[in-house]
Amino acid sequence: MTERSSIYRALEKILPELAKNAEACEKERKVLDENIKLLKSTGLHKAFLPKPYGGHEIPITEFSDCISLVATACASSAWAFSLLCTHNHQLAMFPKQLQDEVWKSNPDSLASSSIAPFSTIKEVEGGIIISGEMGWSSGVDHADWAIVGCNRFNEQGEKIYSFAVLPKKDYTIVDNWYAHAMKGSGSKTISIKEAFVPEYRIQAAKDMMEGRSAGFGLYPDSKIFYAPYRPYFACGFAAIGLGIAERTLEAFKEKNQNRIRAYTGASVGTATPALMRLAESTHQVGAARAFLEKTLNDIKVHAESKIYPTRSTLAGWRTNQAYCVQMCIEAVNRLVNASGATIWMEGMEMQRLFRDMHITGAHAYTDYDVCAQILGRELMGLEPDPTMV
Amino acid sequence: MTERSSIYRALEKILPELAKNAEACEKERKVLDENIKLLKSTGLHKAFLPKPYGGHEIPITEFSDCISLVATACASSAWAFSLLCTHNHQLAMFPKQLQDEVWKSNPDSLASSSIAPFSTIKEVEGGIIISGEMGWSSGVDHADWAIVGCNRFNEQGEKIYSFAVLPKKDYTIVDNWYAHAMKGSGSKTISIKEAFVPEYRIQAAKDMMEGRSAGFGLYPDSKIFYAPYRPYFACGFAAIGLGIAERTLEAFKEKNQNRIRAYTGASVGTATPALMRLAESTHQVGAARAFLEKTLNDIKVHAESKIYPTRSTLAGWRTNQAYCVQMCIEAVNRLVNASGATIWMEGMEMQRLFRDMHITGAHAYTDYDVCAQILGRELMGLEPDPTMV
Amino acid sequence: MTERSSIYRALEKILPELAKNAEACEKERKVLDENIKLLKSTGLHKAFLPKPYGGHEIPITEFSDCISLVATACASSAWAFSLLCTHNHQLAMFPKQLQDEVWKSNPDSLASSSIAPFSTIKEVEGGIIISGEMGWSSGVDHADWAIVGCNRFNEQGEKIYSFAVLPKKDYTIVDNWYAHAMKGSGSKTISIKEAFVPEYRIQAAKDMMEGRSAGFGLYPDSKIFYAPYRPYFACGFAAIGLGIAERTLEAFKEKNQNRIRAYTGASVGTATPALMRLAESTHQVGAARAFLEKTLNDIKVHAESKIYPTRSTLAGWRTNQAYCVQMCIEAVNRLVNASGATIWMEGMEMQRLFRDMHITGAHAYTDYDVCAQILGRELMGLEPDPTMV
Amino acid sequence: MTERSSIYRALEKILPELAKNAEACEKERKVLDENIKLLKSTGLHKAFLPKPYGGHEIPITEFSDCISLVATACASSAWAFSLLCTHNHQLAMFPKQLQDEVWKSNPDSLASSSIAPFSTIKEVEGGIIISGEMGWSSGVDHADWAIVGCNRFNEQGEKIYSFAVLPKKDYTIVDNWYAHAMKGSGSKTISIKEAFVPEYRIQAAKDMMEGRSAGFGLYPDSKIFYAPYRPYFACGFAAIGLGIAERTLEAFKEKNQNRIRAYTGASVGTATPALMRLAESTHQVGAARAFLEKTLNDIKVHAESKIYPTRSTLAGWRTNQAYCVQMCIEAVNRLVNASGATIWMEGMEMQRLFRDMHITGAHAYTDYDVCAQILGRELMGLEPDPTMV
Repeated sequence: MTERSSIYRALEKILPELAKNAEACEKERKVLDENIKLLKSTGLHKAFLPKPYGGHEIPITEFSDCISLVATACASSAWAFSLLCTHNHQLAMFPKQLQDEVWKSNPDSLASSSIAPFSTIKEVEGGIIISGEMGWSSGVDHADWAIVGCNRFNEQGEKIYSFAVLPKKDYTIVDNWYAHAMKGSGSKTISIKEAFVPEYRIQAAKDMMEGRSAGFGLYPDSKIFYAPYRPYFACGFAAIGLGIAERTLEAFKEKNQNRIRAYTGASVGTATPALMRLAESTHQVGAARAFLEKTLNDIKVHAESKIYPTRSTLAGWRTNQAYCVQMCIEAVNRLVNASGATIWMEGMEMQRLFRDMHITGAHAYTDYDVCAQILGRELMGLEPDPTMV
Repeated sequence: MTERSSIYRALEKILPELAKNAEACEKERKVLDENIKLLKSTGLHKAFLPKPYGGHEIPITEFSDCISLVATACASSAWAFSLLCTHNHQLAMFPKQLQDEVWKSNPDSLASSSIAPFSTIKEVEGGIIISGEMGWSSGVDHADWAIVGCNRFNEQGEKIYSFAVLPKKDYTIVDNWYAHAMKGSGSKTISIKEAFVPEYRIQAAKDMMEGRSAGFGLYPDSKIFYAPYRPYFACGFAAIGLGIAERTLEAFKEKNQNRIRAYTGASVGTATPALMRLAESTHQVGAARAFLEKTLNDIKVHAESKIYPTRSTLAGWRTNQAYCVQMCIEAVNRLVNASGATIWMEGMEMQRLFRDMHITGAHAYTDYDVCAQILGRELMGLEPDPTMV
Repeated sequence: MTERSSIYRALEKILPELAKNAEACEKERKVLDENIKLLKSTGLHKAFLPKPYGGHEIPITEFSDCISLVATACASSAWAFSLLCTHNHQLAMFPKQLQDEVWKSNPDSLASSSIAPFSTIKEVEGGIIISGEMGWSSGVDHADWAIVGCNRFNEQGEKIYSFAVLPKKDYTIVDNWYAHAMKGSGSKTISIKEAFVPEYRIQAAKDMMEGRSAGFGLYPDSKIFYAPYRPYFACGFAAIGLGIAERTLEAFKEKNQNRIRAYTGASVGTATPALMRLAESTHQVGAARAFLEKTLNDIKVHAESKIYPTRSTLAGWRTNQAYCVQMCIEAVNRLVNASGATIWMEGMEMQRLFRDMHITGAHAYTDYDVCAQILGRELMGLEPDPTMV
Repeated sequence: MTERSSIYRALEKILPELAKNAEACEKERKVLDENIKLLKSTGLHKAFLPKPYGGHEIPITEFSDCISLVATACASSAWAFSLLCTHNHQLAMFPKQLQDEVWKSNPDSLASSSIAPFSTIKEVEGGIIISGEMGWSSGVDHADWAIVGCNRFNEQGEKIYSFAVLPKKDYTIVDNWYAHAMKGSGSKTISIKEAFVPEYRIQAAKDMMEGRSAGFGLYPDSKIFYAPYRPYFACGFAAIGLGIAERTLEAFKEKNQNRIRAYTGASVGTATPALMRLAESTHQVGAARAFLEKTLNDIKVHAESKIYPTRSTLAGWRTNQAYCVQMCIEAVNRLVNASGATIWMEGMEMQRLFRDMHITGAHAYTDYDVCAQILGRELMGLEPDPTMV
């Protein structure tokens, strides 16, 4: 009974096109240019763009619904595009100077990222010189900027994990995304060779988590920027998992409505085991959606009420999402494992959903072994384990 | 961040008393009189009493929250009392004459039930003569009325499953509730020997499901009575499961914070497996709660908006609740199975929670094998199977 | 402590070669000729060849061990080759005339199959004329004969499901095996256009299950031929599942011994969750192996003791194997789902194991929903359901 | 097709009596004297008694079969009696002087135990003075001796975990076994007040694990004593779990063959979900049995071949058994959770099986979280964690 937003309704219209292109994205190993054009036509990429630049600043709940909808048609497109979108939220925590540089002349401008601190840097006057082969930058083909991770050191010699932002001219793209899942996400390597990054394009991760980054407070009337960067940055994964699982429920129905057994001609789709698997997965995905919605609504209300989340609240937000992905994986397994061998043929949708579902749970952010420990420690009143972030 | 109702806050105050009495309820094999008195003092029993008789007509969402709270202290009390409460909603679908008889002089009056159609009846002038040993009438000791199931036959010879309401004087209670779980619910047998029940105290179940019972429409301004009886009648089970599971999470924390291994003195509670079990069960119970809340909110909105649920919607409501109970059972098993042998000693709370949790999933209404088939058939567009209700 | 057979020890020697070729098999979408040559060099293909033709007639237990060993290196090779081997057992149930034709001049001769009855036939003098596109004939490139399914009708008009054997000259191979799993099995289509099959190359399936086929009893001293064809025909699937799972255990150890987390540098492989996942999967695969060995030993002992299995015994044998595959799938999921995203890159062994594992459970013979019903009916004393075979 | 031993066949004869007494054992909170008499009549208690005292020295595989058989009738009797029996194996590792004292005049003499080192001791000339309330000594009512745990210290001040053996006159029994599971095991407290234990009645646990205890080598021709004490001492738990699970399979069949639904009269027992649950649990218990048999056979062969197990082998033996218990718990849950509410009534066998099953997995020896870590560390080549034994 929810009233859908105009972006959501616009997405519904382009959905058949996205679905039709899903295989082509896999073959090109990147999101098709056409898909990006279609997605931009809905305005979704301005979801978290600050209003002064023409952004929509929609609630995270609404954004998540949009991404899960896209994922029902093409998870790879949803994966790459959601990251391109959420990076805007992160950039809005950088100094005004950077934001003007990125968006003033081109509010459609987007950034891809590779934030594990695998670069090497040299401190120089006014900034750093950075080099590195920065992998897995989803959607990089469609970005004008890159956000990359690096470690700086403060005067006490402590490591300061930071983000540096580079324009497209300062890096090249290595066409090396050969994967068996999320094939169409184009998660290629950003190759940087001694690029200079001025200070206004660098921020410490910790500051961004604790409301102390340079851009924090720039938009006092906003309902989405009084928040740490991370819950927004990473909100796409659970939404994508949900979209994949919800599409799998439909695909299972479509497949089984007319399925018969090779050897006996008996109906499979109306047989009790298929009905029960469908029902249980429907329940499980429904519960995952309810849990995600409740969690995201809490994120939304915090930002709107200008309540900064505690460490314990953050632990809940993050790990709830990882648990949703686990629920979706179970739900998808239950259906795929009862769909016979034909689904494994090339071009069959269910095996694509299966592969995309599993890699969604393999991301560092959704690693449930880590998440369970993080939450478990909070619940038992223990200090966080610094090896698990 | 939810605003709690005044009944909920009143329940919070009596909760320690209820918890203290939990074992005594088990020993007396019924809810203690003291517990009933305490519960009535909060007004919870008037949750679904029509306003003209002084009732509160609170939303089903709020009622569920109250019941799950009570279940954290004493599941048996929650079980018996929730049924006594929800029966009011059903009685409000009977003719005005019956309602006046039950509530006019005593708005605190409550009914217990035994609705499987195991009675034998004889059709007579103006009503029926009914006999039967009607089992498992939870809370019967605290009721002034009984609702019992029977099968009548219409002129076409079709079986008409119906409910008959009898005053206390027309039946006796057989003190035969010897169970290993939900011990304190006092689910004893109602013994009826040739009691006459006039027509105005009989309604067909189907009419009550389809908005055609005699009392339907009596309260046009109500926000809870434009609805079938069943979603209200049975809304306590999932709430109780949730309360038990939520209490188990707390009990596990309390138990493990200081638990050491007998042979080595090693800490168990801060060990990784215990942390991970706690986290996963916390997630699972959290997801179950979110799913239940969303489902009940849908029931609430339907009644408020005077939208009568379709068969398919009803299938979702009912089976979502059964799935929540399944999630709670898994969550409780995960914790209980890692709590060592001491919890099995008499008087230990965790084994009581474990037993009560499992029987909650064993009720005909929460039978997941049946529920999965009901929903599965709906999802695949098949007709309902009449053997599964 | 088991004494290994000489074939097994020969296989151990070629295993590194098979492992090295695994990816090449995937790319060629068939078992490499080199692999077939290597495998034949061990004599494995004569496992079920009757001794008069130079066969080994090894016990099914030993054969299964050999196949699971091959599957640790290349599941596709194991899949195709095991079927080529087990078909010999089936052919030994055909008339002597056929056996001479197949093996007399070439005891290395093998048959592939496609036994779902999807062909169309015409009854003619002395046999049938058969046509059909018979899919999924694993290893067809390496076979000189094909066994295909067809339905004949007896005088009462009853359908008689039968097998027809054709020489290579009577069919062509359609190169259409494009799959995402078991890619290297070369399970291509056999295209038959109006080929004549004389009676001595046709047998009814039922006769082959009940010890009444033309070749039954030809080898009275054999320890493997006093048996229905099916437990031998299909014994490879569980062995392959086991081999995949056992290799996954090793791959997980190898991968995790030095794995660190991208963001923190923390060790993953010695972390408690990884240890526990490895242990639980090791137990589960160990239990699957024990169960399979016990089941196969029962098959072996039956044949050796010339005890023909009852329907109930057959139900146990078949479904036990399907359950073993389910255990292996769970064990593999547990490890793969905790191995991060890198394993999804092309060329990584673990995603190949994962894909091959799942399709192993998707075969009609290992369909657990069907198997559970078959066994359940036997256990409850119900007649078999003819729609489930 | 296994040939059963004469003890096993004798047990089969008394099984109905044991089953009939199961509830009475629960009520008396100990194994009935009658049951002990029946069990002793089969000679089972002499399973591990050295032959010189008239013992049988049967293989551990055969002993386990006997115990699981007893557990199908009365798990409490199996629990207490199996421990009384296996203690004989441990006593055979003590000095000859002790063995003569225990068995010479009374070869039927048995010992119960309480081996967690919760006693306090004082070193004195020729031995120790020991005191303590030693809990959970299953079968203590039927024992003439007690084996209790204590910590001594060597000259380097290192803790030496040891076992002390006391005659019945040196302790009293506290009748405090009030439990909700394994009720009939009579696992009461041994109360010791300053009892003197001479050196010949004390042995270090480590010596007993490493073949260096005083009695090691006393029986050079024996096929069961060239072994550490622990695999024998604790071999009953998995056997009991298996017996409970196997009985649950039968009880489910018996219950469901005629079960109908209260509200509809529909058959439950022949419905697909019940069939599938029964089949899956049958498979799972079958796999557990096969895994246990293979593991125990390995123990048997080691002792017979006089091969002392390595640490890694011991880790496998112990944890395999814990995994079997986990499989049995899952199998029992699957059936009990689909058996409706009636099974929770007092006197119903299935709830007793359910309770007994769960406590079997709650013993320190079968704690799967500990076991998974122990095995995981071995598999990854890490040193044992001393906090987990």
